[in-house]
Amino acid sequence: MLFQRVAVIGVGLIGGSFALALKQAKACGHVAGAGRSPANLKLALERGLIDSIEGDPARAAEGADLVLVSAPVGQFGKIFEKIGGALKPDALLTDAGSTKRDVVDAARKALKKKTAQFVPAHPIAGAEKSGAAAASAELFRGRKVVITPLPENPEAAIEKVNQAWSSCGARTSRMTPEEHDEIFATVSHLPHLLAYVLVHDVAGRKNANELFSFAAGGFRDFTRIASSHPEMWRDICVANADRIGAELASYTKKLASVKRLLARRDARALEKLFDEARDARESWLQKTWAGRKPGS
Amino acid sequence: MLFQRVAVIGVGLIGGSFALALKQAKACGHVAGAGRSPANLKLALERGLIDSIEGDPARAAEGADLVLVSAPVGQFGKIFEKIGGALKPDALLTDAGSTKRDVVDAARKALKKKTAQFVPAHPIAGAEKSGAAAASAELFRGRKVVITPLPENPEAAIEKVNQAWSSCGARTSRMTPEEHDEIFATVSHLPHLLAYVLVHDVAGRKNANELFSFAAGGFRDFTRIASSHPEMWRDICVANADRIGAELASYTKKLASVKRLLARRDARALEKLFDEARDARESWLQKTWAGRKPGS
Repeated sequence: MLFQRVAVIGVGLIGGSFALALKQAKACGHVAGAGRSPANLKLALERGLIDSIEGDPARAAEGADLVLVSAPVGQFGKIFEKIGGALKPDALLTDAGSTKRDVVDAARKALKKKTAQFVPAHPIAGAEKSGAAAASAELFRGRKVVITPLPENPEAAIEKVNQAWSSCGARTSRMTPEEHDEIFATVSHLPHLLAYVLVHDVAGRKNANELFSFAAGGFRDFTRIASSHPEMWRDICVANADRIGAELASYTKKLASVKRLLARRDARALEKLFDEARDARESWLQKTWAGRKPGS
Repeated sequence: MLFQRVAVIGVGLIGGSFALALKQAKACGHVAGAGRSPANLKLALERGLIDSIEGDPARAAEGADLVLVSAPVGQFGKIFEKIGGALKPDALLTDAGSTKRDVVDAARKALKKKTAQFVPAHPIAGAEKSGAAAASAELFRGRKVVITPLPENPEAAIEKVNQAWSSCGARTSRMTPEEHDEIFATVSHLPHLLAYVLVHDVAGRKNANELFSFAAGGFRDFTRIASSHPEMWRDICVANADRIGAELASYTKKLASVKRLLARRDARALEKLFDEARDARESWLQKTWAGRKPGS
């Protein structure tokens, strides 16, 4: 058993799935849960994701061998403040925050010397569903978890956090918090923003009902991520505003050049763009998604 | 039986599904097929989508009671030129073009007085798959088909084309070609362009492989429509360039305002936008997609 006692702060889709996956892998004993919604914690207990509900993060962290913080990243400062004092000297701390530079800053500020016990992580397994109701032991199976170790971390701490995520079925990789925030601004944060903005744009028009009534499967899939958790995405956007802003600027520039192609009806250049995009996507699908069932 | 003899010009996903659905509804007798790819026509014959392969569109249209033109819209001028002379005086002509103003212009130019026999239509049932291999009798079941009648059309002609699409299981509605092109620029053409551009942007970067390796399910669904048929989308973009350009301008303006929210880390305004977008999408899903299985 990797950890006798685990604490999960924020027992939603990610935190709940982490707890469940560790339990199924027999990698942990007791799981203590804390969070903002009593109803969600009650459901988590009923579903067996956690074994006890603790009144606050500090109580959950007391005596824990591993603490996972899994909350919108805007909450991390407060949570780290609360659990810092309760962390055992040999406890490990990891997280599931979608951004990393801000989370690391918050940890250094609140945890001081105990920052060495914090091995930041980001499981790439979001969904537009949220809450303990959506948690599943299989959520991380075959998915990537990015670990962004700190210079303070002993290698043994990194390795043990790595093992925790691996026990959940995840494939881990390492990079710096800076690399992380840059990569995910491109492949995750920007698309989320684009989808939210498109839906918002359509919804704000006088003929919104008519427009929606003719929107089909393409629109539905394009905008699936616009059903994501607003508070979570607000916090991501604020935390990674500089990188996302840069991505938005580069994308807008590319849109302007496409607008010029449209204006001069440049069929050849448009087809080339579509061809190249389709080829790139298809080869990515083959490499990354071959054998996965749709919707997984 | 609605039509003794049907001709399908372009036996791809849409044309092939139309033929198959009419056959299954026992709404037609012989289906003659014509198209650009002999291999695709052969497959269409083998799969029973069509009953004969004709050497060119005119031969297919000869003696047909209903002709469906189902090709990238850039081909319509040429096809109308070819079939105009072959159309029986009591034959009906419909289409599956994704844009309508240009298709109507092409019809008027090539068909002259026979334009009255042409009842334009657009089935909202695309997919990123194409070709006779992807055709299915169920493709139009429960889907919308927009009919954009012309002032020249006798009401009986509109009604009979309406019946043809209804026999395929589609729900039809009527609007003008202008309304059509405006609505679909918003809910279909713009999202396709945005998805193509995002994939192209990522694919063109030095670290494209690394970026793609961290792209997850959100990116996959957001970009699904970037696997659409490049020639088809080239033609749509050229045909509807003015409307799509206007949509792109309005969307870019909205992105610029979101960029300002990011720059000043306006958490409240960002969350409001995300909340409103999610609510709008969820209520659209409930109205439109309730009871449909995912991926349908």
